[in-house]
Amino acid sequence: MRSLGKWLAGLALLAIATAVTAAEPLASWNDGAAKQGIVTFVNAVTQQGGKDFVPEPERIAVFDNDGTLWSEQPIYVQFAFMLDQLRAAAPKHPEWQSNAAFKALMAQDKKALAEIGQKPVLELLAVANSGMTVGEYDQSIRNWLKSARHPQLKRPYTELVFAPMQELLGYLRANGFKAFIVSGGSVEFMRPWAEQAYGIPPEQIIGSQQDVTFAMRDGKPVLTRAPKFVFIDDGPGKPVGIYRQIGRRPIAAFGNSDGDLQMLQVTAAGAGRRLMVLVHHDDAEREFAYDRQSHVGKLDRAWDEANAAHWIVVSMKSDWKKVFAFQK
Amino acid sequence: MRSLGKWLAGLALLAIATAVTAAEPLASWNDGAAKQGIVTFVNAVTQQGGKDFVPEPERIAVFDNDGTLWSEQPIYVQFAFMLDQLRAAAPKHPEWQSNAAFKALMAQDKKALAEIGQKPVLELLAVANSGMTVGEYDQSIRNWLKSARHPQLKRPYTELVFAPMQELLGYLRANGFKAFIVSGGSVEFMRPWAEQAYGIPPEQIIGSQQDVTFAMRDGKPVLTRAPKFVFIDDGPGKPVGIYRQIGRRPIAAFGNSDGDLQMLQVTAAGAGRRLMVLVHHDDAEREFAYDRQSHVGKLDRAWDEANAAHWIVVSMKSDWKKVFAFQK
Repeated sequence: MRSLGKWLAGLALLAIATAVTAAEPLASWNDGAAKQGIVTFVNAVTQQGGKDFVPEPERIAVFDNDGTLWSEQPIYVQFAFMLDQLRAAAPKHPEWQSNAAFKALMAQDKKALAEIGQKPVLELLAVANSGMTVGEYDQSIRNWLKSARHPQLKRPYTELVFAPMQELLGYLRANGFKAFIVSGGSVEFMRPWAEQAYGIPPEQIIGSQQDVTFAMRDGKPVLTRAPKFVFIDDGPGKPVGIYRQIGRRPIAAFGNSDGDLQMLQVTAAGAGRRLMVLVHHDDAEREFAYDRQSHVGKLDRAWDEANAAHWIVVSMKSDWKKVFAFQK
Repeated sequence: MRSLGKWLAGLALLAIATAVTAAEPLASWNDGAAKQGIVTFVNAVTQQGGKDFVPEPERIAVFDNDGTLWSEQPIYVQFAFMLDQLRAAAPKHPEWQSNAAFKALMAQDKKALAEIGQKPVLELLAVANSGMTVGEYDQSIRNWLKSARHPQLKRPYTELVFAPMQELLGYLRANGFKAFIVSGGSVEFMRPWAEQAYGIPPEQIIGSQQDVTFAMRDGKPVLTRAPKFVFIDDGPGKPVGIYRQIGRRPIAAFGNSDGDLQMLQVTAAGAGRRLMVLVHHDDAEREFAYDRQSHVGKLDRAWDEANAAHWIVVSMKSDWKKVFAFQK
């Protein structure tokens, strides 16, 4: 007959074995507080009859895109695309040759760009990325993604998605979660590739919105892009975008910068068990290292709040076995 | 040995039996062109290897709400709610006593309302339906729905959903479709009850949007309603709402009025097999009868286009065995 002590030891081993099995889908994650925190949360909210159980339809998880699911340095990928669109449209716009924002952008003159400020730059980019139908714009994004390469990593941008986050998305999906992207980027820039890269369909992508207008043209309905943003899905805009398109409070949120702070706060403020995660870019060797001082993806206030509120901070360097799928 | 004739007859019987089995979920639909057209379409796009096959993620169906999924006469349900909100807020707004729109609304003075025009009326209603947090507003809708009754049909509004359309939604879901509501009404007015009534979760509801703003209040994040519409999801707005929130062209669209015309046109203009359906209110006995002359849910241009383009027009009187679940 087995003693109570042996029986308890056996139970403990069984519990460990179960945890390992459940964690297996996160193969690129090193064992540590980050991985354990995620797995513990998922186990808690999916345990039928448990005190933290959440029914499937309410298992909403939101993910920032740039810097959380793929690289965002040295400039946002969409910004690189919009610059190329601007370059391509330039021959039809001789008036741009005397436009200060255009000249500074083409010369990549950071000092001049800082002096000019964001507004004239964004207005110019909006003009260069407007006027066409939404179908034509979609096609131009697809074409660009085929040929464009990251300036330092020399890879197609769609290969610069983070393998551990792809695994995490699959793990959440397998546990009945519905994941949404909630990005400051434009919704149409993510739709052509997010389904393949992340398993997230177009209707689960929330982003900034340029205006589109409906018209009948030669008896066919068309939607045309207008050079005006009607919604900026960043910072305090993210909870607004979530409210408008999801209408439920997420139970899990993943970000990497101060632009994700309000989304994380709204998630944390709900009743019941919650998961808030920040990805910290501390791996200059395999990707990039930046946080409080960065112009792109600045992580400062959100980091302080994560530390104070005990949110999970993922170290890309020590929590991930690899960053990209092409790395060993 | 069976003759070829007998074999063919057997095959025909088998085909009929299959059709009947497939159509069974539409129990409240009479056999006829409308039901047959819907079933034929669903069979075609779900037949693996068939020339009209559509993969599951692309089986997007869009439904207008007012007049298509539930009753909209004598006034939109949401309008009845907003009027009650206005009435409830009146004691705090003595200045309204001299407001022409307020006086006309309270007196239900149709002539005065017509003279005043839509804008002052909508502005007044927006003020009465603003200022609170989104959670408080959601609760006020839930409370109202519990006690409010339809003036003629004397039923809670949530009982005034169309039973044949509920069946249709279930039938499409069982065939791998994802259904979205695309309504001129406000998205938050539908979310509290649409999941139970239609099986459509909050994130699959597209509607008009009043502005909401984010703020931290006593250390808690709150979203507050501002008295301004940022998006009107009606007429040419519907394809825009579909583009923004779904990002794929629907393969099936269901409406009942001219406000649904552009949504039907965009659906029809896609490549491959499509289903366009109009619900015609011709049943004064069980519900209401109205079309070209109606102030609410006017069906005129869309009806002409349906006839010209051979879209399906459902007669509520002859195609439906019952309109509401409580009818025999």
